[in-house]
Amino acid sequence: MKATGSTSTVRNQRQELSHLYRRVRGATESICAPLAYEDCVVQSMPEASPTKWHLAHTSWFFETFVLRPHAPDYEMLEPRYEFLFNSYYNAVGVQFPRLQRGMLSRPTLEEVRAYRRHVDQGMAGFMEAAPERVLGIAAAVIELGLNHEEQHQELILTDLKHVLGSNPLAPAYRREAARSPRQGKSAGARWVDHAGGIVAIGHEETGFAFDNERPRHETLLRPFAIADRLVTCGEYVAFMQDGGYDRVELWLSDGWEACRRLGWKSPLYWQETESGWDHYTLDGMRPVDPEVPVCHVSYYEADAFARWRKARLPLETEWEAAAGESPLDGNLFEAGALHPIALATTPSASTLAQLFGDVWEWTSSPYVAYPGYAPPPGALGEYNGKFMCNQMVLRGASCVTPRRHVRRTYRNFFPPETRWQFSGIRLAR
Amino acid sequence: MKATGSTSTVRNQRQELSHLYRRVRGATESICAPLAYEDCVVQSMPEASPTKWHLAHTSWFFETFVLRPHAPDYEMLEPRYEFLFNSYYNAVGVQFPRLQRGMLSRPTLEEVRAYRRHVDQGMAGFMEAAPERVLGIAAAVIELGLNHEEQHQELILTDLKHVLGSNPLAPAYRREAARSPRQGKSAGARWVDHAGGIVAIGHEETGFAFDNERPRHETLLRPFAIADRLVTCGEYVAFMQDGGYDRVELWLSDGWEACRRLGWKSPLYWQETESGWDHYTLDGMRPVDPEVPVCHVSYYEADAFARWRKARLPLETEWEAAAGESPLDGNLFEAGALHPIALATTPSASTLAQLFGDVWEWTSSPYVAYPGYAPPPGALGEYNGKFMCNQMVLRGASCVTPRRHVRRTYRNFFPPETRWQFSGIRLAR
Amino acid sequence: MKATGSTSTVRNQRQELSHLYRRVRGATESICAPLAYEDCVVQSMPEASPTKWHLAHTSWFFETFVLRPHAPDYEMLEPRYEFLFNSYYNAVGVQFPRLQRGMLSRPTLEEVRAYRRHVDQGMAGFMEAAPERVLGIAAAVIELGLNHEEQHQELILTDLKHVLGSNPLAPAYRREAARSPRQGKSAGARWVDHAGGIVAIGHEETGFAFDNERPRHETLLRPFAIADRLVTCGEYVAFMQDGGYDRVELWLSDGWEACRRLGWKSPLYWQETESGWDHYTLDGMRPVDPEVPVCHVSYYEADAFARWRKARLPLETEWEAAAGESPLDGNLFEAGALHPIALATTPSASTLAQLFGDVWEWTSSPYVAYPGYAPPPGALGEYNGKFMCNQMVLRGASCVTPRRHVRRTYRNFFPPETRWQFSGIRLAR
Amino acid sequence: MKATGSTSTVRNQRQELSHLYRRVRGATESICAPLAYEDCVVQSMPEASPTKWHLAHTSWFFETFVLRPHAPDYEMLEPRYEFLFNSYYNAVGVQFPRLQRGMLSRPTLEEVRAYRRHVDQGMAGFMEAAPERVLGIAAAVIELGLNHEEQHQELILTDLKHVLGSNPLAPAYRREAARSPRQGKSAGARWVDHAGGIVAIGHEETGFAFDNERPRHETLLRPFAIADRLVTCGEYVAFMQDGGYDRVELWLSDGWEACRRLGWKSPLYWQETESGWDHYTLDGMRPVDPEVPVCHVSYYEADAFARWRKARLPLETEWEAAAGESPLDGNLFEAGALHPIALATTPSASTLAQLFGDVWEWTSSPYVAYPGYAPPPGALGEYNGKFMCNQMVLRGASCVTPRRHVRRTYRNFFPPETRWQFSGIRLAR
Repeated sequence: MKATGSTSTVRNQRQELSHLYRRVRGATESICAPLAYEDCVVQSMPEASPTKWHLAHTSWFFETFVLRPHAPDYEMLEPRYEFLFNSYYNAVGVQFPRLQRGMLSRPTLEEVRAYRRHVDQGMAGFMEAAPERVLGIAAAVIELGLNHEEQHQELILTDLKHVLGSNPLAPAYRREAARSPRQGKSAGARWVDHAGGIVAIGHEETGFAFDNERPRHETLLRPFAIADRLVTCGEYVAFMQDGGYDRVELWLSDGWEACRRLGWKSPLYWQETESGWDHYTLDGMRPVDPEVPVCHVSYYEADAFARWRKARLPLETEWEAAAGESPLDGNLFEAGALHPIALATTPSASTLAQLFGDVWEWTSSPYVAYPGYAPPPGALGEYNGKFMCNQMVLRGASCVTPRRHVRRTYRNFFPPETRWQFSGIRLAR
Repeated sequence: MKATGSTSTVRNQRQELSHLYRRVRGATESICAPLAYEDCVVQSMPEASPTKWHLAHTSWFFETFVLRPHAPDYEMLEPRYEFLFNSYYNAVGVQFPRLQRGMLSRPTLEEVRAYRRHVDQGMAGFMEAAPERVLGIAAAVIELGLNHEEQHQELILTDLKHVLGSNPLAPAYRREAARSPRQGKSAGARWVDHAGGIVAIGHEETGFAFDNERPRHETLLRPFAIADRLVTCGEYVAFMQDGGYDRVELWLSDGWEACRRLGWKSPLYWQETESGWDHYTLDGMRPVDPEVPVCHVSYYEADAFARWRKARLPLETEWEAAAGESPLDGNLFEAGALHPIALATTPSASTLAQLFGDVWEWTSSPYVAYPGYAPPPGALGEYNGKFMCNQMVLRGASCVTPRRHVRRTYRNFFPPETRWQFSGIRLAR
Repeated sequence: MKATGSTSTVRNQRQELSHLYRRVRGATESICAPLAYEDCVVQSMPEASPTKWHLAHTSWFFETFVLRPHAPDYEMLEPRYEFLFNSYYNAVGVQFPRLQRGMLSRPTLEEVRAYRRHVDQGMAGFMEAAPERVLGIAAAVIELGLNHEEQHQELILTDLKHVLGSNPLAPAYRREAARSPRQGKSAGARWVDHAGGIVAIGHEETGFAFDNERPRHETLLRPFAIADRLVTCGEYVAFMQDGGYDRVELWLSDGWEACRRLGWKSPLYWQETESGWDHYTLDGMRPVDPEVPVCHVSYYEADAFARWRKARLPLETEWEAAAGESPLDGNLFEAGALHPIALATTPSASTLAQLFGDVWEWTSSPYVAYPGYAPPPGALGEYNGKFMCNQMVLRGASCVTPRRHVRRTYRNFFPPETRWQFSGIRLAR
Repeated sequence: MKATGSTSTVRNQRQELSHLYRRVRGATESICAPLAYEDCVVQSMPEASPTKWHLAHTSWFFETFVLRPHAPDYEMLEPRYEFLFNSYYNAVGVQFPRLQRGMLSRPTLEEVRAYRRHVDQGMAGFMEAAPERVLGIAAAVIELGLNHEEQHQELILTDLKHVLGSNPLAPAYRREAARSPRQGKSAGARWVDHAGGIVAIGHEETGFAFDNERPRHETLLRPFAIADRLVTCGEYVAFMQDGGYDRVELWLSDGWEACRRLGWKSPLYWQETESGWDHYTLDGMRPVDPEVPVCHVSYYEADAFARWRKARLPLETEWEAAAGESPLDGNLFEAGALHPIALATTPSASTLAQLFGDVWEWTSSPYVAYPGYAPPPGALGEYNGKFMCNQMVLRGASCVTPRRHVRRTYRNFFPPETRWQFSGIRLAR
């Protein structure tokens, strides 16, 4: 929001921002609509958080970074929430231990909803009435807060899948399952060549992006080829049947150690049956469809699979260069499948299919700062920069990523052992 | 239930058993009435279980040990509950891992209640219509199941106190707090002498008792003295102020190790404030009352306190001999305090006060079999016998023990590190 | 040593004490003679200690409790040894962490030997020249120190067996193996009845005994029967072949948990071969002899075996009562076998064989204080009393116990998981 | 060794290789000369290995990769050494667990020395008499084995420093300490600018280098500046005094977690005294010299220090580009200091001092494959490639690196928590 403008323009901007705010916040609540109270309490592993916590934390974000610094009349509903719902912002203060988020029966879901309403009312008043100058400053934080909320929309579904999928009853997330898209029979993946050379990587100055996507900068790529589609479950089963999980020579040393320690024999959520493989989806247990992109694999599994195929994973710079101007569309959250789907048609030559949607794609790039990167000052500088170690970059978007959230330059990142994200594989060489 | 009798007598017995069943089962549900859905999900530590699990497991007990073997028409509501709600009966089958009870959002509380109703209907029909011979066999198991349910009534409140008391918001269990009993000022405890000699210990053959209370047998006691009341918070604070938690010479070796590892500085639930000590009660945070019996101490703390006082803890045989014919009454669950209370009047000479109610009393006796003990055959033999190692006996009853459940010969037992039970101290020498 | 006497008597007493001191200390060094420097450094598990540490700690005992308090001219060789070689005496000061004893390459074995010589010279001078009154006080501590040294002689061999037996090369402790005693074929064990009643247990006031063996007191026993010999490897193999390690109903709950967690399938040191079972002995790998008493089993295994045989383990009071006046002799350290041996002849009726020597015998008695027990004042009060929790009593003596150290009233104690001690099984019922 | 040549040339090549082999192998033994037997046994942490193990493993390397495949007459001294001394080569077979290397008292040091002699005799015979063609193939592996041995020479000293430096007695490694180099007073570090652009990185095809240094390839650098010398202890103390270890905003998230978990307050081996800081060196405890480069810091500490100085760590490509043609000399192993030393003179303008020697320099580059990298086939392909995850690159060389081992393109790598290596800091911006 620019700091000056005609009254009516400002009014429009206020309305647009308020509208966007309501839309994004409402989407979060829609995601939770099918849930039982009990589903919102459980923390099924240290890396995941209860739904209740996500709902509160995203509100805490607006309270902490918009209302408390910028809205002088705002009163906190419960001062202890500052401590309870701070995720990792040390500049804000001490945090309730992450490992104990599932220990909190209170505030109840209804109390958390009341907290959301309280913050939403505060935000509505603020966006309506804040002085133009103040709103000008806060608008960027609000936009960040909405992107943050979208990240948590994806996390709610991802974490919830772990809660429900770890339950021996394997309950479905929703009553009405997605209609199964028609079954295709995919052709073999084809290699799309890229000439390499000096390419520009990262986000331009204008428009929203996270700090870690900047600065845009040049990098030197060698010629490479990248697969025109994702690796499918059928291809992955071939790896499994060829002893992939037992052939140490295919694995990174740390990967092999994780594989043995954690007893991996298949992607997460897969269960062997008499007739093959089933896996848990947000619609309950389903047979594994060989045409569907494989999902819920770690970096280590993706890397081992690539080695087995005598290929490799792409660098994130290769991925971004290859993505070029491909449309930002695909099997995203709004498509409603909440699971990867088979490719309907063979991609036309030199076109990369499934870049956005279905699964996040592991790259071989450790998550480090772009040259010249500097985190913003203050607590919001903790958003991305302090995590630039021991993680790998994933590119694209998944079937639970909201469409508005997708960008070509987006850098998702997780530790290489991570499997509960909707993460899959595209090969390069 | 005797196997023969006139029709009307049998009818009366059926009615009595049904009535008792409904009363005990209903009491469990009353205890849960003030709870939010969310409160029933959380497992706040490995030793504790979610309320939802207690509600289901106690129903599983009747289903598994009464209905499935004895009621041919009974149909299970959900066969997978056999696995989910088996606590530790290996003869029944594999169990869902104890550490993950808090990972289960489903079945929901409403589904668990439906399961209880399903079992209750089965039981009602069975107690109404089972052949006399069959009911004769099952009646002892039903009585065991009701005692089992009473144990879990106490555990529900104990575990729930840990859930709520670990929450930084320290929410109260119920809306209406117990009225504070009038404040007394207790006189010093007095020693009551016992001549020792050969005494009979354990439960007679008639009447219900757990297997571990039998057989009744003789033991030889040396003369001893036992305190006429429990140790109070005020006395315990004196121990703390005298460096009790920092004086290694007062502690057992394993106790000192636990004290350091777990950072004990006071009983569980205590918090230091500017003016003294508060502690969490089921009515929320309250100042520590120096006249009230100290509660939520481990065996190690009780033992260290006793050594500091140049006394010791009683043997369980001494306790039982000293209890003699004292009335089975006191500050029990039905009194409604749900917390220990101060002694209203000084006990008359040679009378032991507070034997039943307020707190379970740690004894210096490891939990082992009585001479001649043999567990019953089958799965129910796992009820007590297999735990006779690494635990200490507690005697008496607590402020959350149902009155019907109290016996002079009752042997409660927990590992010496345990603090979340309502456990306190009576001295001997 | 009495405080008064004629000069020549005192002189004799000094000479006797000095002679005994040299004999016991020399025996420790003889035990270490066959070792390589490297053998004396390793701590193969937290419960065990390096030989070097044992050699230094036993010297530290005399330095700390005799020389420093009573010999004014004594100078410490290295003041930091007070910290390094204190085992667990908090009243003496802070201790080097037990878990890191194997991290110390220095002092070297030669330096530790120099420390032993330094202490021995100090002790020789003290026993020669200390004023009669002072020596009168110190004599009891010296006797305790020598018993302490004998305990560590057994521990050196026990810990060393773990070091060498954990090594894939399975090296023997000594060059010349013990001659194999002739092979016998044992008859079935017979039950020896005991009438029970009131029996006196514990050590008399006169003569050396550890504090935990006192006071002598009366206890009431029910009639019982006890096996006339130890359980053999052949009998134990029958338990294994009958699924003993896989039948949960035979095990205590904690025992089953330990069995699964630690992967027990046989006694410690056993390895399955194509033709049966071998086990590591201090003479290297040897076939398991079915006639030899089984050794290196935990309390949990002993208890499970007894349950499988529809018997139980004896109480320690039963054991002591049954031992009566049996001679304090058997396959002890001085016999040189360093391993249990088969019974040469069938015991005569009503005689208990193998009470002393071969293996320590697990009893079903938790290790607690005798009635009226009080530890001595000061640091030496930490010798036994503070360990009276979470351990089980073993009775008798083993093939690595020095003969002088054996007593009918001796109470050895270890946690129920312990297997590296020379521990075996005698049944009762 | 080229496959063809005149007889005398071949003879010379054989002699050169034999000479080199004896020189490198002899250097390893010289390093161990001052040690006690006991020093060679201890494994003071999981990442380190006992000296004895290093001595055996380096011999195992020649036995496994040269003698067994190429010398048909070679007989193994002890076949079980294949298992015991395999570090991590899965293609060779199963390995003795790394965590238990310190549990092995046998083979003794003398037995390991006999093993070395056995392998050396085999190698001498092989290099003397192997057919030219065979030796031509094996020569590259021998060269790799000698570089491998040099890496372990550095590791022996590094691991041994941890053994001795963890001992409360803080014994020195050698009798005669290094003479202290004269004390200098260093000027402030200056920035040396580099223009960036496309630069070639990595080792040429000719000459020995590890596989991870290849292929040489072009990369695009932005302009940068790099410090002309290492960060000193004095500068690091200023960071400490400014609260460096308590200011969470200076740390990566994982770094802060490690800092708290491990209780870091200073570099490894530092101890606060009344007058300042001492630290353990291979010559024993010494006062920290403020002019000497700081050593034994983790990547996390190096990164936090750089952030505190409003600078950053260099990329490994920046480091290599900046190193240019600087001479491969400095305070290396042969200088005998075995500790970093102060800079004697201020570097001339635009010259980088201390590039090789003193300490390995942490870079901000995760350890990943160079574009086009492929590991060699077979077991030796496990040498480097499988570790390309979760580690950071260090460049340069340290005061315990042998001179022959130094290369401009050398990529050392360790996990970011690592502190026991001789690792320090050079800043960039």
